Amino acid sequence: MRCKKCPQRAVLGLPRHNLSLCGPCLTDFVRSQVQRAIAKERMFGPDQRILVAVSGGKDSLTLWEILLKLGYKADALYVDLGISGYSERSKDKVERFAREVAEPCGARLRTHHVEEEFGSGVKELSMLIKRPTCAACGTVKRYQFNRVAWENQYDVMATGHNLDDEAARLLGNMLQWQEEYLQKQSPNLPASVEGFAKKVKPLYRLTEREMAAYAVINRIDYVVEECPMAKGAKMLVYKDVLNRLEAESPGTKQRFYWGFLEKQEKAAVNNHHTMSDIDQGALQPCTTCGQPTTASTCSYCRLMAKAKTAPA
Amino acid sequence: MRCKKCPQRAVLGLPRHNLSLCGPCLTDFVRSQVQRAIAKERMFGPDQRILVAVSGGKDSLTLWEILLKLGYKADALYVDLGISGYSERSKDKVERFAREVAEPCGARLRTHHVEEEFGSGVKELSMLIKRPTCAACGTVKRYQFNRVAWENQYDVMATGHNLDDEAARLLGNMLQWQEEYLQKQSPNLPASVEGFAKKVKPLYRLTEREMAAYAVINRIDYVVEECPMAKGAKMLVYKDVLNRLEAESPGTKQRFYWGFLEKQEKAAVNNHHTMSDIDQGALQPCTTCGQPTTASTCSYCRLMAKAKTAPA
Repeated sequence: MRCKKCPQRAVLGLPRHNLSLCGPCLTDFVRSQVQRAIAKERMFGPDQRILVAVSGGKDSLTLWEILLKLGYKADALYVDLGISGYSERSKDKVERFAREVAEPCGARLRTHHVEEEFGSGVKELSMLIKRPTCAACGTVKRYQFNRVAWENQYDVMATGHNLDDEAARLLGNMLQWQEEYLQKQSPNLPASVEGFAKKVKPLYRLTEREMAAYAVINRIDYVVEECPMAKGAKMLVYKDVLNRLEAESPGTKQRFYWGFLEKQEKAAVNNHHTMSDIDQGALQPCTTCGQPTTASTCSYCRLMAKAKTAPA
Repeated sequence: MRCKKCPQRAVLGLPRHNLSLCGPCLTDFVRSQVQRAIAKERMFGPDQRILVAVSGGKDSLTLWEILLKLGYKADALYVDLGISGYSERSKDKVERFAREVAEPCGARLRTHHVEEEFGSGVKELSMLIKRPTCAACGTVKRYQFNRVAWENQYDVMATGHNLDDEAARLLGNMLQWQEEYLQKQSPNLPASVEGFAKKVKPLYRLTEREMAAYAVINRIDYVVEECPMAKGAKMLVYKDVLNRLEAESPGTKQRFYWGFLEKQEKAAVNNHHTMSDIDQGALQPCTTCGQPTTASTCSYCRLMAKAKTAPA
């Protein structure tokens, strides 16, 4: 198999684009798709300050690398969840990447420790409040990323969600008709109200396979293991199912998620209600911490309050 | 495993209802779900004349049987597609069922032969016009069912589409964002304009497994083989994928399709545009045959005209 752009041997086939690429051409392809996502969705400009949410996995570290290579001003935040073994290994990868790749570009790594704030990790936290670990972890990460971005005046927060993540999440929300969540599934969520950072997903045009190939080719050293808490998670089933459909009909994931985005855009134009309008009507500062919330106390503060009063 | 409604041994588990049933209780369950579909969606009343589209497969023959057992006035139409071997075997099943079950209830079987009208079967027809067989077959069946129902003044036409069929079709339409088709995916399509028969799907609350069990228990003798033209059809992939999701989370198909119907109903209330309004604006009589169509000539007449002028 030859690269379709140069005479080299191809390392990856991209059936949905009817394309095969060698290492350097794949690197160009991935970076240009990220640049296209940033421009098309008006995510940020070259002078804005970006905070990348990094976990140590391939997508988030690769996103950080790409943004730096493209010349953006991108710092990162790692939330240490205190999951024994897994968190140490992922923190190691993140810190090494920061030292070897990011710092030479003038970027810095920030870290938030769940154990410092709460006394133990998210697993213990979730057991105490009798909620699934993934739910507690989601609340903690969303809260801390927003807080750090907002307090340090970053213009925008970027996460490493790729096309597979977004298509799987969309499929799950559609199967259950979670319309409320459907509205929030855009690769560009504006900073609708005071206290909410703008959130973007620059990898929404790239599949998991493309990201993995990019990471290998560009020697990005990441944690390969899935989080041990995520075993049996529904998202993995949705991804499996979409891979089956993609194999039958290349481009399925892309048509599905991008088609949804187009439809959403049209609906917004017809509706004249932007998400900012809706958010501004629904959100108010949390009485405990001040972050925007639809309730009087935000879900993070409720979680923490519940954990503090739970019998040990 | 015991039946949850009586002391008998269960023959089928229905995980989505957290239920297991013996043969007679399953029969009651299936019939009551059909009755509920008819009432909930206002499909037809006890004095109306129904034309059931039968293929010889389990769903359509079973639908005919259930409607007769429930006391409805249901005739049937079989379209002989002229697919060598398969069509003979399915016609045999349909004719035997008509003789042994339907005629004693005062119901009759009508038959339309594609070969009589066109000179050969749908396979040859599709080759002549260079279209996939399933596409040509769909056009022919839709046209003939509507024509026979309309010409013989049936109040409503019923097809044997079950929950698996509807959920798979919905998934396919959603993955491609076929919004036009999404609008037509209701179990009750009104006779919106002169020349269009009302169309209903009384099995939309029942899965393929439930229908197969009902057919076996009630000794309905049907063609088990899939149509030889349908091999590799995308619908089968969608069904597979939904079965995988159903196994992970019982009730997925039902939540997905019924949730869609609820959403559609709400949208119709807010829109004040019924499908009849839309149809009345878009449809006009075909200049060749008079059936309603969005073009000047309907797709059936165009297909037939193309076949007649194609070089043999």
